Amino acid sequence: MDGRTRHLAVIGIGSGDPDHLTLGAVKALRATDVFFILDKGREKDSLVRLRRDMLDEHVTGPFRVVEADDPWRDRSQDRPSAYTQAVHDWRRRRADVCERLILDELAPGERGAFLVWGDPSLYDSTLAVLEDITARGNVAFSYEVIPGISSVSALAARHRISLNRVGRPLHITPGRRLLGTLESVGNEDSDIVVMLDAHESFQHFDADGTWIHWGAYIGTPDEILIAGPLGEVADDIRRARAKARAAHGWIMDTYLLRPRSDHTAAPGAQPSGRGSHGGEPPS
Amino acid sequence: MDGRTRHLAVIGIGSGDPDHLTLGAVKALRATDVFFILDKGREKDSLVRLRRDMLDEHVTGPFRVVEADDPWRDRSQDRPSAYTQAVHDWRRRRADVCERLILDELAPGERGAFLVWGDPSLYDSTLAVLEDITARGNVAFSYEVIPGISSVSALAARHRISLNRVGRPLHITPGRRLLGTLESVGNEDSDIVVMLDAHESFQHFDADGTWIHWGAYIGTPDEILIAGPLGEVADDIRRARAKARAAHGWIMDTYLLRPRSDHTAAPGAQPSGRGSHGGEPPS
Repeated sequence: MDGRTRHLAVIGIGSGDPDHLTLGAVKALRATDVFFILDKGREKDSLVRLRRDMLDEHVTGPFRVVEADDPWRDRSQDRPSAYTQAVHDWRRRRADVCERLILDELAPGERGAFLVWGDPSLYDSTLAVLEDITARGNVAFSYEVIPGISSVSALAARHRISLNRVGRPLHITPGRRLLGTLESVGNEDSDIVVMLDAHESFQHFDADGTWIHWGAYIGTPDEILIAGPLGEVADDIRRARAKARAAHGWIMDTYLLRPRSDHTAAPGAQPSGRGSHGGEPPS
Repeated sequence: MDGRTRHLAVIGIGSGDPDHLTLGAVKALRATDVFFILDKGREKDSLVRLRRDMLDEHVTGPFRVVEADDPWRDRSQDRPSAYTQAVHDWRRRRADVCERLILDELAPGERGAFLVWGDPSLYDSTLAVLEDITARGNVAFSYEVIPGISSVSALAARHRISLNRVGRPLHITPGRRLLGTLESVGNEDSDIVVMLDAHESFQHFDADGTWIHWGAYIGTPDEILIAGPLGEVADDIRRARAKARAAHGWIMDTYLLRPRSDHTAAPGAQPSGRGSHGGEPPS
């Protein structure tokens, strides 16, 4: 990279535990001149504080923080095609904002960064926004991606489970696609991680045949973990969700669903939720 | 944890780039008294060196390394049920070895660690082995899991792509289950990451309708990245695999398959392989 090129880093900062930061992420933070923050106003105070603490702890040199309002997003659309269109529209407006930020706030030769919770490759729009800006051709920049610990990895680590069973596929799906995914993959192979589920879709699952490993605010001091047969713990999860949402004003949760028979019968596949991690509903 | 309990950490150390190590992994390495290494003899020299370099760089206090031969594994089984049984048998023998190591080499109150490439929650047997040992009840220990950057995250970061498309599920499968997974999820939703594929299963895919993002030795100095329409780059990938395998004596590769129409038509979904990353076959 020559001295006149703008450079951007999309940095995965993990799912909430400051120890999720990779050494590569720390190096990238330290090399950054300008941090672009888009979620101002929408993001929760505790997340803003977490991110500021990371910068305070790891970045000693001078840097600027540039904040911009995240464009409005139509969340009323529920049909898949309308939903996809709403997201694409929102990304286009995000690209408008980011293109302006890069042109106005990042001098040629400077290094900017977007900090992404979890892993930038999983259900995040930052990369699509940068591709859009690149395609427009109004501002030239190079960019790199620093992978991060996703909430999926963090969920599995906290429950001390493998996401897959031996020789079988794993499926990761947004909540709105859970039932469709189950239908297509069939019960036998239904190791399914659910993200972005606003509607507690797990309640539509076979309560007797399914094991759930659930977590909220994973990796943070507010973390809640619950694991068990879905029929036994679904109500606990619902109550914990409602209570936490009321207390924090928001909730971010992730869970793994797994056929129960295999879970209890296969060697080495005992639920790890028993013992010191999870397995008991928070009271 | 009291001073008399044995403690184990299962530490994800990332997929080959030393910068994938998380701050939590570094802390766990530094807290370790005994590192258990099981892949001796089978593991490749370059990986052994990578791991040793990590310890040299990050651990300053005293530690022991205990190596044991990894039990023999029957790799001749190809039918799913026989394959699963062979893996379970192998894990049981691994548990025999590890139980012995923990009893003989880790004193009560000491901290042991298993270092796992990638993320311990994805296609790795260490957690199942520890569950097996726990269930036997011959030695008591507590254990924790430190999540790591998987080769899946690393692949996406190096290609600068999102693993999922907007609002759609993502599927991760062993090579042997690729065709079955495609069949069940259908072409429209076939964003599929393939791991552990010894047989270049991508060649059975629709060459005209599929985009592939492929990578080998991801994150290491030997990294190879190729991306493009499957029909155009499949031969390049085959040649690159054969050449690298001959040069290194082994290969570890991962790839994402994605329906091509959506990939080229959707806003913000241009192949990121163009430009400085991938997109061109190595020569």
